[in-house]
Amino acid sequence: MAAFDFTPLLPPGSPPPAAKWTGSPKYNFTGGNNDPAQVPLGGLMAAADAVLRREGRSLAYYGVAHGPQGYRPLRTFLAAKLKRDAGIACTADDILLVSGSLQAFDLINGALLAQGDTVIVERDTYQGMLNRYARAGVNVAGVPLDRDGLRMDALEETLAALKAKGIRPKYIYTIPTVQNPTGTILPMERRTKLLGLAEEYGVPIFEDDCYSDLIWSGERPPALHAMSRAGNVIHIGSFSKSIAPALRVGFIVAPWQILSRMIALKVDAGSGALEQMVLAEYCTPHFASHVPALRRGLREKLEALMDALDEQFGTAAEFDDPPGGIFLWVKLPDQVDTMKLYQSALAAGVAINPGPEWSTDAAHSRSRMRLCFASPTESEIREGVAILADICRKEFGVPERSGNVARRAARR
Amino acid sequence: MAAFDFTPLLPPGSPPPAAKWTGSPKYNFTGGNNDPAQVPLGGLMAAADAVLRREGRSLAYYGVAHGPQGYRPLRTFLAAKLKRDAGIACTADDILLVSGSLQAFDLINGALLAQGDTVIVERDTYQGMLNRYARAGVNVAGVPLDRDGLRMDALEETLAALKAKGIRPKYIYTIPTVQNPTGTILPMERRTKLLGLAEEYGVPIFEDDCYSDLIWSGERPPALHAMSRAGNVIHIGSFSKSIAPALRVGFIVAPWQILSRMIALKVDAGSGALEQMVLAEYCTPHFASHVPALRRGLREKLEALMDALDEQFGTAAEFDDPPGGIFLWVKLPDQVDTMKLYQSALAAGVAINPGPEWSTDAAHSRSRMRLCFASPTESEIREGVAILADICRKEFGVPERSGNVARRAARR
Repeated sequence: MAAFDFTPLLPPGSPPPAAKWTGSPKYNFTGGNNDPAQVPLGGLMAAADAVLRREGRSLAYYGVAHGPQGYRPLRTFLAAKLKRDAGIACTADDILLVSGSLQAFDLINGALLAQGDTVIVERDTYQGMLNRYARAGVNVAGVPLDRDGLRMDALEETLAALKAKGIRPKYIYTIPTVQNPTGTILPMERRTKLLGLAEEYGVPIFEDDCYSDLIWSGERPPALHAMSRAGNVIHIGSFSKSIAPALRVGFIVAPWQILSRMIALKVDAGSGALEQMVLAEYCTPHFASHVPALRRGLREKLEALMDALDEQFGTAAEFDDPPGGIFLWVKLPDQVDTMKLYQSALAAGVAINPGPEWSTDAAHSRSRMRLCFASPTESEIREGVAILADICRKEFGVPERSGNVARRAARR
Repeated sequence: MAAFDFTPLLPPGSPPPAAKWTGSPKYNFTGGNNDPAQVPLGGLMAAADAVLRREGRSLAYYGVAHGPQGYRPLRTFLAAKLKRDAGIACTADDILLVSGSLQAFDLINGALLAQGDTVIVERDTYQGMLNRYARAGVNVAGVPLDRDGLRMDALEETLAALKAKGIRPKYIYTIPTVQNPTGTILPMERRTKLLGLAEEYGVPIFEDDCYSDLIWSGERPPALHAMSRAGNVIHIGSFSKSIAPALRVGFIVAPWQILSRMIALKVDAGSGALEQMVLAEYCTPHFASHVPALRRGLREKLEALMDALDEQFGTAAEFDDPPGGIFLWVKLPDQVDTMKLYQSALAAGVAINPGPEWSTDAAHSRSRMRLCFASPTESEIREGVAILADICRKEFGVPERSGNVARRAARR
């Protein structure tokens, strides 16, 4: 077959082509993958069997004829769960099921953003969202975080500075409950302040709540959506972190005025119904007991990761013990360029998320990295971190051997 | 909760909001729904059980760790099926699995189209594609069809006229094998001519092959992709029509140069893996025997629909007996405005697709409609067509009673 040249037909600004996929790295500390041992396999099998037997013929209809918002029993489950866990008062009619939270991103951005618009985000934030802004030509104002999450003084400054320039941001994108990548949980008083500022400046809040099920203590603050008096919060969540990421099911809870705009943009003839059906059938009786067991397993992996970092990096790796989640945000010494480390580590079979890909501030994030710990085994965690430390030592002269042993000894 | 006003934040050109969903119409002749009785329920249940038992833990990884092109066994099945049925020589590496053929549309359009670009389509074509062009600000040149599908003389004229204006169309979008909505199959000599013209003018072909499994005779011409020497054909297909539309699984086969651009745009962390897994497990042994049974059932429903139209509309409803598919393209007398008929029929519980929504030519399609016959029962088909005829008679004075009886008698 001759090679027709498509290149002259590509629109301006096309992203570069994907490389051929060559398999997963041996030591994978990236991506929101979960622990294979914790997939509730028996429960999912029983759920698939029961729901197919009872309702499988409805697969002949787009969206199993439950309308554009998705399989109703899953929305009913979510309404009860959101009330119980996050304090959100909503019904199945206020929920839009989507193909993973990434489709939620696209629908929310599609409904609100045009090229040249401005959004406010946490300085360190989810890479997939930053990539979307870059592709859409959206301006991003990053607001610093501290150990309690988004800093309200800095947010207020940013809102005021934008207002002085005549810019009304389209929304504040925040992950207030187990922030990605920093792992922080925004305390109640900051939640109140954030809602007050958003109301004062007439800016919606885009609340990404994908990790809140994974708090070790099992206790979370109410969602911003639950606390909002202004009705300006768009809330999203997902089953990727609590059940399994290969099931592409997420959801949006938002006032009808804006949810109806997203539904108008959702021209995909419905998200996958089988996955929604199996999740509803499984989660309604089992979600509340599955998640605590999952959390215990994740906590053990996190401890393996923190131990390995202490052992291999010593004081050269700084991090806070996060209150939940599947990732650790690690600060290495200033001389480490994690974009370079990422390349060398990948060549050695170790995948990490370099800080600059997860931040609006290249200088701040230069020597930081995100390590995901849910999917590798504990021995892979130990081996992978040891390899990473070796590479780091060769390339950047840190960690030194002596420091490590000292810190490990001190912790134990 | 106060009502925050999102309206000032909407970007220019936002589509109108969705209306609240109020349920499915009683007599639904729209949408690509299938026959619930023909969903291979036992087979899908057995497949779900087997594949979850064997590989379910891999759901802990995005895309079950099969890479961005999707679950490999389903791609392997497709490569063999495409070779056998459509004559396409490709491997699993040439296939991108997507969330239904509508995501294929979005990825292909995303890779090739910018506002102001021009595409060539069949004059009567899929509504969902026309809506996408309108939203994207893409210019559409419609080329007339006859009983053998796209007219090559008209296509050549269109290509030449565009070239004279300095316009290189981004692609020719065609449904050559059971065209939607006309049901035509493009003969071999036109396929050769189409490929020649596309090559001559340097224009890719976008071949939508979603209905080719549903040809009553079980025999289809080779796909344009299979016949292409230039390597300029992007081929898409789906499991919606052959298995179940609520499973959102489609696929793209295209040269790597352009497929790699689509993969770069597919930032959804993978399409739903469970649906891909169940389909692979079911289809590999059972697809070839399932589809002929499905076709027989669909043919019976089509005959019920044609009989009902003969009985109720007589000579007032003109149509060709299509060689396959799930829809009938019906011409009513010129005084019938199907956009008005659509409204009145919907109020009476009968949903039809009015011609102008499925055409680039409002005058040509004004008195035409598309009737889908796969999902209603035969009694619903009879009742629905009777109600439609009543409404048509009251609003437009056709059909007259006498004509109907005559035609029905003549057919039998």
